[in-house]
Amino acid sequence: MTATSWTRKHIISLEDFSIEEYNTVLTTASSFKDVLQSRTKKVPALQGQVVANMFFEPSTRTRSSFELAAKRLSADILNFAPSTSSLTKGETILDTAKTYLAMGANIMVIRHSQSGVPLNIALEMDRLQSGVSIFNGGDGLHQHPSQGLLDLFTICSSLESKNPQISLLKDKKIAIVGDILHSRVARSNINSLLASGAQVHLASSPTLLPSLFADIVEDKYKDRLFLHWHLKPALENADFVMTLRLQKERMTDYLLPSLREYHQLFGITLDRLQWCKPEVKVLHPGPVNRGVEISSELMDDPNYSLISDQVTNGVAVRMALLYLIGNSK
Amino acid sequence: MTATSWTRKHIISLEDFSIEEYNTVLTTASSFKDVLQSRTKKVPALQGQVVANMFFEPSTRTRSSFELAAKRLSADILNFAPSTSSLTKGETILDTAKTYLAMGANIMVIRHSQSGVPLNIALEMDRLQSGVSIFNGGDGLHQHPSQGLLDLFTICSSLESKNPQISLLKDKKIAIVGDILHSRVARSNINSLLASGAQVHLASSPTLLPSLFADIVEDKYKDRLFLHWHLKPALENADFVMTLRLQKERMTDYLLPSLREYHQLFGITLDRLQWCKPEVKVLHPGPVNRGVEISSELMDDPNYSLISDQVTNGVAVRMALLYLIGNSK
Amino acid sequence: MTATSWTRKHIISLEDFSIEEYNTVLTTASSFKDVLQSRTKKVPALQGQVVANMFFEPSTRTRSSFELAAKRLSADILNFAPSTSSLTKGETILDTAKTYLAMGANIMVIRHSQSGVPLNIALEMDRLQSGVSIFNGGDGLHQHPSQGLLDLFTICSSLESKNPQISLLKDKKIAIVGDILHSRVARSNINSLLASGAQVHLASSPTLLPSLFADIVEDKYKDRLFLHWHLKPALENADFVMTLRLQKERMTDYLLPSLREYHQLFGITLDRLQWCKPEVKVLHPGPVNRGVEISSELMDDPNYSLISDQVTNGVAVRMALLYLIGNSK
Repeated sequence: MTATSWTRKHIISLEDFSIEEYNTVLTTASSFKDVLQSRTKKVPALQGQVVANMFFEPSTRTRSSFELAAKRLSADILNFAPSTSSLTKGETILDTAKTYLAMGANIMVIRHSQSGVPLNIALEMDRLQSGVSIFNGGDGLHQHPSQGLLDLFTICSSLESKNPQISLLKDKKIAIVGDILHSRVARSNINSLLASGAQVHLASSPTLLPSLFADIVEDKYKDRLFLHWHLKPALENADFVMTLRLQKERMTDYLLPSLREYHQLFGITLDRLQWCKPEVKVLHPGPVNRGVEISSELMDDPNYSLISDQVTNGVAVRMALLYLIGNSK
Repeated sequence: MTATSWTRKHIISLEDFSIEEYNTVLTTASSFKDVLQSRTKKVPALQGQVVANMFFEPSTRTRSSFELAAKRLSADILNFAPSTSSLTKGETILDTAKTYLAMGANIMVIRHSQSGVPLNIALEMDRLQSGVSIFNGGDGLHQHPSQGLLDLFTICSSLESKNPQISLLKDKKIAIVGDILHSRVARSNINSLLASGAQVHLASSPTLLPSLFADIVEDKYKDRLFLHWHLKPALENADFVMTLRLQKERMTDYLLPSLREYHQLFGITLDRLQWCKPEVKVLHPGPVNRGVEISSELMDDPNYSLISDQVTNGVAVRMALLYLIGNSK
Repeated sequence: MTATSWTRKHIISLEDFSIEEYNTVLTTASSFKDVLQSRTKKVPALQGQVVANMFFEPSTRTRSSFELAAKRLSADILNFAPSTSSLTKGETILDTAKTYLAMGANIMVIRHSQSGVPLNIALEMDRLQSGVSIFNGGDGLHQHPSQGLLDLFTICSSLESKNPQISLLKDKKIAIVGDILHSRVARSNINSLLASGAQVHLASSPTLLPSLFADIVEDKYKDRLFLHWHLKPALENADFVMTLRLQKERMTDYLLPSLREYHQLFGITLDRLQWCKPEVKVLHPGPVNRGVEISSELMDDPNYSLISDQVTNGVAVRMALLYLIGNSK
């Protein structure tokens, strides 16, 4: 599959992504990364098209990344600010989306605290034969596909910068550590990493990683997904460690004793990386609580940390995805 | 009158619009609608000019429409966010406008909860011989001229899509239903529809449509303006039904018994459309309270609803107006 | 020094600006002012570059000025809205800046209520050899360099519009009146004006101008800096009067008796300007509390007030500074 044979109209979830689609995203993002290092940094790929950033759940970081990606593709951008929106006036979310459709939006990037909102809007846009693409910018506890894909791109590029392909991850051991239960990032990553052929080891406390979590994956993947309630077995001989952001409000939910105890049990430090492969790399979707999910010293160590690469690659991967759905058949 | 002979510098109110001006707006909007259906969707008409969106009263929908219209004309846009503004620092509104003038704004789109603010700013801008155009984006209970003009364009285009002219409305029966007392949209629509030669029938409860409301129009129009406290006589044989948004805060003002009762008395449904002409069309300025002003079923029925056309036409009509005042003599 | 030999990477403070740098800014701003009066109003100087406006302290006026300056230079702009930011999620300011660096920002304009934040970020950006420029948009009580430079440009241009040079201010008497203690604008202005060879007279109440304030300047300047607790000696024979904004919260800090009494003691009026040179001009960084720092009548008098010029020049001076640091060696 190449960019010209891409058919997926919406980016909602990685649950049903094919190997060909993953590789097309990786290859396209790689070529946009070259554009970003050129002098002009822009391509006219989405000239005249309107990208509406509809962030019902606020996020400056992710919105800026999408906004910059769309600008690099020469699209026009409409930012939708929920606090000043007609939502407070009683309009339904579907009606808001239809308003942006009628205004001329070609792609809507939708972030919402409720799982399923982007999918529902996509179904309605298809029913109306609107031709609009919906891009899930993170929905509830469900999925955050662009984060999953930029993490995949970052890992594959760290192994082979010129030709990132998903097959590079076959049999790699990848640990995902932290508040997995509440993480849409973890869910998207589990989808892409299992599809790649990697061994995926989840580590957290029982409150944040219930045993039935193993049931979310298809049977064919079950023998490559491992759950741990201690950190060490997840980290031993790991090639990559993906840490997750800890929402401080989990404390008040009685799911965690304290930030200090969390760091003692599951925080990633230079010392604990000794358990992993020598060339291990660490990721975090940001923003990081320094000294909680990850030690401050490790976060700033370019030998181990891929955190800054993730942000940089985020723009290239989102350019690739906007480009692909904006030109899908 | 053609676009090249347009002389109006500010868009404040439809009260004194001439037939020639209405037709110039309709013709210009029609040609911009073609631009929006082209591949590039942009014209360089306002290149180098600065459009300042000054929305003292928040509205994502209307601001986005103006923003997109200005972008399509290649203008630079400054968005003024009232919550983070110097208004909280004690500056007067006129001084804020003069600051944007000094910064280089060429057109200011002003929405304010107080009637008269855009007019006052326009007078001051003229006194200073600034050359700046003021565009009323909705002021208090006074006027919302771009909404009035996009409604006019939508109605005329539904009758004759290639050549929308105001004379098409002569002797048509047009019902305006809802909270007319508090609606600047209704006031702008009454101006344009009476000027067109249509019969205008207003329908609402006595609290939202006091009898003295008839006095707002000029004597020469009085025999074509009708007030009804029941829905049926307004709808009988109507060609168009314009519904208005119901502000929920009217309940707490004791002007209405309940949303349910309002819908029973004045809500527009497929059943009630039987009273109208068979080819009747329904409009609403949005956002809609589904099941209050209009039934959900009717809102989604493309045979009757022009609501989505209104939003689409809003961009073309605002392009036309920005273009006309930006190039006025 | 010309624009092509400019080496300063960051604009943090005017404390160490050289005469050559001041003159380069004045000359460059003057040529950008010509661009702003041309038809297209744009130059491709920063095409492909990203300017991130990071306003941790809100300010529509200053942000709009920077935004317009960056747009006129054809840069891409990212606006960072603090209320919806990851700061609320516990990220440090340095990490936020590094995120924007990783995303591709070339210049970060940073406003913060704490003194020193822009400098700290600049030091970190240099340590990382990032190549990014930091532009202080106002930090705590420390500095507001672009305001100082636009004031300098406005004063010099009022003396010689075609060739504004800092030497024009030699031996001019310039009064700075108002809440000097809490003003970063005053600090930046004191730096540039003393460097120019002007006589600088500060006037305020003892609570807002403690005697030890004289110690902030270098010894070589001490004989040209004068402190007054009464207005008249500061204004006598003054060539320029710079007024400062009075934060109303100073009242509740018990530093001032009342706004009315402040105006009686230190408010600038047409009457009091009789003490100055006949050709005296008055400046204010805005937004103005009419009738407090300055009488309403004086503010609107084009014979004396340079306030509107300051706003206009702000765009040209910020274009010059963004251009210079964006192309520094």
